[in-house]
Amino acid sequence: MPIIVQKFGGTSVADAKKIRKAADRVIKAIKNGFSVVVVASARGKQTDQLVKDALELNPNPPEREMDQLLSTGEQQTVSLFAMALEAAGYEAISFTGGQIQMLTDNAHTKARIKSIDAKRIHKQLDQGKVVLVAGFQGVDEKGNITTLGRGGSDTSAVALAAAIKADECEIYTDVDGIYTTDPRIFKTAAKMKEISYDEMLEMASLGAGVMHSRAIEFGKKYNVKIHVRSSSEEREGTMITHEVPEMEGIIVSGATIKKDMAKISLVNVDNNPGNAAKIFACLAKSRVIINDIVQTEVSKEKANLSFTIGISDLSAAKKAIEKIKDEVNCQSVFIREDIAEISVVGVGMRSHYGVADTMFGALAKAKINIDSITTSEIRISCIVDEDQAEKALSAVCIAFELDKPAEKRGS
Amino acid sequence: MPIIVQKFGGTSVADAKKIRKAADRVIKAIKNGFSVVVVASARGKQTDQLVKDALELNPNPPEREMDQLLSTGEQQTVSLFAMALEAAGYEAISFTGGQIQMLTDNAHTKARIKSIDAKRIHKQLDQGKVVLVAGFQGVDEKGNITTLGRGGSDTSAVALAAAIKADECEIYTDVDGIYTTDPRIFKTAAKMKEISYDEMLEMASLGAGVMHSRAIEFGKKYNVKIHVRSSSEEREGTMITHEVPEMEGIIVSGATIKKDMAKISLVNVDNNPGNAAKIFACLAKSRVIINDIVQTEVSKEKANLSFTIGISDLSAAKKAIEKIKDEVNCQSVFIREDIAEISVVGVGMRSHYGVADTMFGALAKAKINIDSITTSEIRISCIVDEDQAEKALSAVCIAFELDKPAEKRGS
Repeated sequence: MPIIVQKFGGTSVADAKKIRKAADRVIKAIKNGFSVVVVASARGKQTDQLVKDALELNPNPPEREMDQLLSTGEQQTVSLFAMALEAAGYEAISFTGGQIQMLTDNAHTKARIKSIDAKRIHKQLDQGKVVLVAGFQGVDEKGNITTLGRGGSDTSAVALAAAIKADECEIYTDVDGIYTTDPRIFKTAAKMKEISYDEMLEMASLGAGVMHSRAIEFGKKYNVKIHVRSSSEEREGTMITHEVPEMEGIIVSGATIKKDMAKISLVNVDNNPGNAAKIFACLAKSRVIINDIVQTEVSKEKANLSFTIGISDLSAAKKAIEKIKDEVNCQSVFIREDIAEISVVGVGMRSHYGVADTMFGALAKAKINIDSITTSEIRISCIVDEDQAEKALSAVCIAFELDKPAEKRGS
Repeated sequence: MPIIVQKFGGTSVADAKKIRKAADRVIKAIKNGFSVVVVASARGKQTDQLVKDALELNPNPPEREMDQLLSTGEQQTVSLFAMALEAAGYEAISFTGGQIQMLTDNAHTKARIKSIDAKRIHKQLDQGKVVLVAGFQGVDEKGNITTLGRGGSDTSAVALAAAIKADECEIYTDVDGIYTTDPRIFKTAAKMKEISYDEMLEMASLGAGVMHSRAIEFGKKYNVKIHVRSSSEEREGTMITHEVPEMEGIIVSGATIKKDMAKISLVNVDNNPGNAAKIFACLAKSRVIINDIVQTEVSKEKANLSFTIGISDLSAAKKAIEKIKDEVNCQSVFIREDIAEISVVGVGMRSHYGVADTMFGALAKAKINIDSITTSEIRISCIVDEDQAEKALSAVCIAFELDKPAEKRGS
C-alpha cells in the first residue's frame, strides 16, 4: 500500500475540534488507499506556556532539560490524536521520537537527525494502524531527549517520509500553498502548483516563510515530494519537488522582499590577498550573519567592499568593523539602514537570458534606483531604498506576470 | 555518600514558587551530606486537565495512549524541577521512567514494576548531580510507556529507593505525618513517630489515606524506611519501618473508621463443601470487592454467611446473589446499608491480651451495639450502626489513649 506522511502544525491541532478535523484528513487518505503516518506539533500555545514556565524558574535553563520539557507538548498531541482516530473506529498508535529511535546528535535544542528506525513504523502500518509520531523531537545515543529547533516538526515529517519511503509528505498549515510572492504586498500573487527544492531553498533564505530550510534540504537530499496545503480547505496546495523539465520553461517562479536589512560599505580598502578574509573573520567572531557580499576594484590597489546584514546584527557589525578598518587600510565606512532586497528566483534562469534585463527595466520604469546587485545561478537580487521596496516588488511581479499561474504566462 | 529519595506530590510542585520550595528541601539534604534522588508527580491539576482533554476526544480512550498522554505531566515537573536546582547552583538531571529503564509489565494504567536500572542513577549521583525521576511511569519491554495507577508516584519513589539502596525515602505531602486516627473526627488524635509496614498496610486498607498500599508493600519487601512528612513544615513526620522491639509495647497504634459500606447476610445457607466458593466466585465474576467475610454454623447442615462491601458495589452484588441464592439453598438475604466499620490496629496485639476486651468494653460503655466482629493477627474490626460510628471511634480512641503519643500511654 502506498504510504503518505501528513504533518499538522500547532494551529491545526490546537483543540479537540481541530484534532478531529485533522483526523478526518487521515481517514480520507485511508479511504483513498493510503497507509498514513501522522507527525504533529504541540497544541496551539502549549510550547509558549512551557517556555514561560521554564523561564519563571530559570532565566537561563539548561538545554537538555529544556528539550526534556518541550518534547512533552508533541507527545500529548499525538496520543490525543490517536484517541480521536480510535473514537472514529480507526486503529492508531502514537510514538515519541525516542520510541521510533529518531536518533540525533546531542546538540540540544538544535539537534540533527542521524537515523530513524523505519521497522517499528512499518510493522504497525502492516497491521493496518495509523502511526502517529511526535514531531520536533529525537533522542541521542545515550537516550537523552533532543529537539530539532525551529521548524523541527517539518523536518521530522520529511525525514520520516524519507526513512519509510513514503510516496508523499503533506504539510498542513494555515496557508493554502506557496505563492509567487507575499500576497500581503502584491495582492494578486498567484499560488504555485509546484516549485523545485532549489527555488524553495532560495525563497526560504530570502525570507519567504511557510517552511524551514532544513526540511526542504532533507526533501531534496532524499527526493521526498512535499505537498504544502491548507488544513482548513480541500483544494490542492503547492508541491515542492525535484526539478522537472517543465520547470525550465518557467523563467521566474517567485519574487521575494526582505526588509530590516543594513548595508555596510568599506570604501577604498587595500586590495591585498587576505584582506577580505580578515574582515569576514572579524565579523564571524562577532557572530554577524552576512547575507550578500559585493566587491569591486576601484583601482589597481584599491577596492570597495560592501555586504548586507540583518538590522539586528548592525551594532555588533559596526564594532567589528571599527576594530579591523585600520588594519585593512579602509578610507571610510558607509552604512545604510534604509534598504531592502528584492529578488527573483527561478530554475529557468539557468537556460534563459534576459531575466536581469526584464528586472532592471521594470525597476527603471517605476523610477526605482538600484543600489547594488547580486546574483546566484537561479536568483537575482537588487538592493533598493526601503521606502520604495514594495513598489519595486509589485513592478517586478507585474513584469514577470507573477499574478498568473505559470502555465498562462507569456500568453 | 548516603542517598535519600525525596518524593513530592502534585500539590507540593503545583507552581514555580512551590517547586522552588521543594528545591530548597533538596538543597538542605545535600548540605546535610546526602546524595539526593527526587521523584515528582504532575503539577497540581495537570493530570486532571489531560484526562479531560482525552475524554473530550474519546469517552473510552485506549489505555496505551492514555499512559502516553498522562506520563507527560511528571516529565514536565522533573525537568522544571531540575531547572530550579540549576538556577540555585546545583547540577541536576531529569529522567523519564523509560530513561532509567523503570521496566514494568504491559498492564497499561496499572502496570507493575519489574526492575530498575540503578546504574544510570548511580553514575549521575557519583558525578555530584541531583537525579530527578518522573514518578508514576515506567516502560514495558517493547518501549511502550506505562503508568502505575493510583498512588503511582509513591510506588516509584519507594521502588527507586529499594533499587539504589537509599538510606531513606521521604514522602512529602500535605499532611505532616500519620495520625492514630482521622483528626477530622477525633480532634485530639496524636501523630505517630513510627509505624510498622504491617500496621500501615492494615490502616491503608481500612481507608486511612496518606499512602497507597503498593508503595508500603514495596517498602516492606525491600526494607525501605519511608518517612511521611509535611512539605510546608520543618518538623519530622512519621517513619514507616520494619517492626522494632519497642513497637510490641504499643498495643494499639491506630484506629480507623470506614463508612460507605454495606453488609449482605445469607441466612441459612446449606453448609456444603464448595458453597462458599460458589458464592464468592459469582461475586468475583461481577467484580465485587469483598472486605470481610464472617460465617457461622447455625446447625449441622446450615450456616449464616455474611460479608461487607463498598456501597458502590452493592447493586452488582445484589444481582450476583440473586443468581446464586437458590443454588446454595439460601433461606433469605438480609442487607444493611447503614453500617460502618471501626477498627483498631497494632502489632502489639500479637503478644498482648485484653485488646478485644478493652474495645468491646469501650463500645458497651458508650451504648453502641456491635453488629459483627472480624479480626486479623494485628487488627480488630467491629461493624456498628453508621450514625453511631463517629461516637464509636472516639470511645475506642479514648480507651486506647490514642490522643497521647505512644510512649506516654498507660501512665
